[in-house]
Amino acid sequence: MNRRNFLQLLPGLAAAPAAAQTMPNIVVILCDDLGYGDVGVYGSSIRTPNLDRMASEGMRFTQFTSANPVCSPSRASWLTGRYPTRVGVPKVLFPTDEKGLPDSEQTIAQALKTKGYKTMCVGKWHLGHKPAYLPMRRGFDEYFGIPYSNDMNPPVLLHNEDVVEQRATLDTLTQRYTERAVKFMENSKGAPFFLYMPHTMPHIPIAASKRFRGKSPQGLYGDVIEEIDWSVGEVLGTIKRLGLDRNTLVLFSSDNGPWFQGSPGRLRGRKGMTWEGGVRVPFIARMPGKIPAGKVCDAIASPMDVLPTVAKLCGITPKNALDGIDIWPLLSGQKKDVERDLLIYFDDVNAQCARMGRWKIHYSRYNNVTYSPAPAGGRVNLLLQTPELYDLSKDVDESYDVAPEHPEIVKQMTARLEQILQGFPEDIRSAWAQTKQKKNAESRIGTVSRQAQ
Amino acid sequence: MNRRNFLQLLPGLAAAPAAAQTMPNIVVILCDDLGYGDVGVYGSSIRTPNLDRMASEGMRFTQFTSANPVCSPSRASWLTGRYPTRVGVPKVLFPTDEKGLPDSEQTIAQALKTKGYKTMCVGKWHLGHKPAYLPMRRGFDEYFGIPYSNDMNPPVLLHNEDVVEQRATLDTLTQRYTERAVKFMENSKGAPFFLYMPHTMPHIPIAASKRFRGKSPQGLYGDVIEEIDWSVGEVLGTIKRLGLDRNTLVLFSSDNGPWFQGSPGRLRGRKGMTWEGGVRVPFIARMPGKIPAGKVCDAIASPMDVLPTVAKLCGITPKNALDGIDIWPLLSGQKKDVERDLLIYFDDVNAQCARMGRWKIHYSRYNNVTYSPAPAGGRVNLLLQTPELYDLSKDVDESYDVAPEHPEIVKQMTARLEQILQGFPEDIRSAWAQTKQKKNAESRIGTVSRQAQ
Repeated sequence: MNRRNFLQLLPGLAAAPAAAQTMPNIVVILCDDLGYGDVGVYGSSIRTPNLDRMASEGMRFTQFTSANPVCSPSRASWLTGRYPTRVGVPKVLFPTDEKGLPDSEQTIAQALKTKGYKTMCVGKWHLGHKPAYLPMRRGFDEYFGIPYSNDMNPPVLLHNEDVVEQRATLDTLTQRYTERAVKFMENSKGAPFFLYMPHTMPHIPIAASKRFRGKSPQGLYGDVIEEIDWSVGEVLGTIKRLGLDRNTLVLFSSDNGPWFQGSPGRLRGRKGMTWEGGVRVPFIARMPGKIPAGKVCDAIASPMDVLPTVAKLCGITPKNALDGIDIWPLLSGQKKDVERDLLIYFDDVNAQCARMGRWKIHYSRYNNVTYSPAPAGGRVNLLLQTPELYDLSKDVDESYDVAPEHPEIVKQMTARLEQILQGFPEDIRSAWAQTKQKKNAESRIGTVSRQAQ
Repeated sequence: MNRRNFLQLLPGLAAAPAAAQTMPNIVVILCDDLGYGDVGVYGSSIRTPNLDRMASEGMRFTQFTSANPVCSPSRASWLTGRYPTRVGVPKVLFPTDEKGLPDSEQTIAQALKTKGYKTMCVGKWHLGHKPAYLPMRRGFDEYFGIPYSNDMNPPVLLHNEDVVEQRATLDTLTQRYTERAVKFMENSKGAPFFLYMPHTMPHIPIAASKRFRGKSPQGLYGDVIEEIDWSVGEVLGTIKRLGLDRNTLVLFSSDNGPWFQGSPGRLRGRKGMTWEGGVRVPFIARMPGKIPAGKVCDAIASPMDVLPTVAKLCGITPKNALDGIDIWPLLSGQKKDVERDLLIYFDDVNAQCARMGRWKIHYSRYNNVTYSPAPAGGRVNLLLQTPELYDLSKDVDESYDVAPEHPEIVKQMTARLEQILQGFPEDIRSAWAQTKQKKNAESRIGTVSRQAQ
């Protein structure tokens, strides 16, 4: 008799975690370039019934903020609990890059392996595509997916470290990822598991399987999101079917804001920008009986909080000092907010913005935009003549600069930022020194002498 | 006894228009760079009690779409009822420009002069600053204001055609405009009047008078909007006090979307872009007894509709063929929608987008953005490899391209666009021919080979 039939014969057991298993299972579903406004409960008109139900059975965050507005650095922070600039992955990795996430870093998978977890990564890795940096070397027992973004060279599809498709067929990827994820959970046989599922979609070029193609009123992008939503339903259904509902923490989110398509809701900006639209993403957490149902959390939270929270939950002492914090007090509903240090918004090596409570300060921003090619010479980190300050409690779309009214906040945040940056690697400190030094000298925005209209 | 005291002694008269006056007064209050999301009733957190009350006493539009995302062309369409590309003002006029709105065009003021209206322009003109193009030559009896944007050279302040301030003091402008507007209405003495009040604010550099400075929780930008709101209150209060409430059509709007500050609400894009955020603006119309109170109109409307509507209301036959249509059936509450031809979104000479019912099609867009300097070489009209189609009824933030699902709509809209463009001047037709011809050859967006992240 297999495990599944055994559970069916003992209905009382179905609600409780399997006797042998006291450690919680961890499931992280991470979309690629899904915007803050791309999920039903976050205001999208795209149909996402499974995610909407997941939110109604769990907790939804309104201020979950990626540590970086592009793929690789964001992923680095998810898996390490640290700023991507601290761990040496400040920008997107390309197929020409030889390196990846350094060995000195401990991933969530590596942390959980110390407690005997079964671990699998299904999806887009993007933290180094050379064997030494692939998931199998970073704490995962199994890997199925593509090593970098689907718009970089025709991506290969890997199983563990073997190429199984020289050119990955994109339209069935979400479906195949889902099948692999379900199989992995079914095969865990009582051992606690960590499933990390970074979807390839809805990163361009987008694709959906035949069953979903042409079905959404919002076009192919809608089809793609509907298929991801279906996938979430399959994962949650499997957990329930295995009787692991109350012992499995499931997190759903995105690496950064939407790129060409996708909606940031009413936030300003998109992927590649440190406006909120580039970094604020949906975050839904579900663990029936532990996380209260149908709650909305308005506290700031970060992907860097995932490792510390999981570590606390599983009694693990992380190897490195972390930038994130344990947010279980928020997830469990014990607290509405937790004490949090100034949160820095990096893009590449530049500390462009920072957040402290309701305040967000901007020091610089890139001139490239998501809907146009970068100007000749590539991206330029444009320095603001003077910092801009936004009160996100009143001005979520960062439109009304209140720096002139609050010089004390500007001073306080800048002082704290500089203290924190003292603990960062040399390249980060030197980038900040340049930002400060060039101020006024090379400022190109924030003035009134721009092309007038 | 002056007119005001006379009215106070005859309370019965206060509610009815003065006996001598059967033609309606027309008041157009046009802000500069005020965003769709910058007014309380449009979702702003900025306090705009007078505008909110104006909306509750009148009608508010949710799809009022400027004919162009920058100042001069937008103003040209407001005053002529025609596409700015048709009237030869396709782009922003600079202090170095010698020309302005051509004499062949008839402005609303000129049309109303044929019916004996008193007319005044108070504010930023921006349709030619040489005497031959100033308001006094375009149907206005009086002018008080600055001839172009407040960020172009230090602007002079003019009264009629005389310089009254070599460098206009910006912080008291809104206040002084308001005083002049009130005085003009008070002095109309029974003759029907047309007050055109194009505010200088909130175009950068923004400034507010002492009474408003530092008062808004949203900073100086909020102060500026609060002062404009106060100004609207003064204008409406004057109309009421003069007993002209039921015989005065008051329109409030903006020339285009917000620039560096200001909020487009949840629309995509800002000033200078043909995304909705660049062109969709607040539009509130009030005329008690004629326009139903507290209604919201979701039909598409355009500044080009103002001249035809006013002309119909006043029994005037416009001199030129108009692109706008009479929207009195909407304003009077008789109809929820009116038949409307395909609406073209031009930027400079380029027909970048078009709207037909719920559909919006994009053919090209500029690479410059509102929060960064234009790349070397200036603005480039980037051609989309294939048109993008958005269903604004489901996707107000233009995020989900449904062109692949609706080739018949793309075909139909493009065919109609080309028919309409046949009637346009040579430079416009030639720009469109280039857009078509260069397609595929010079496409730089809409592909997947962009800088991958």
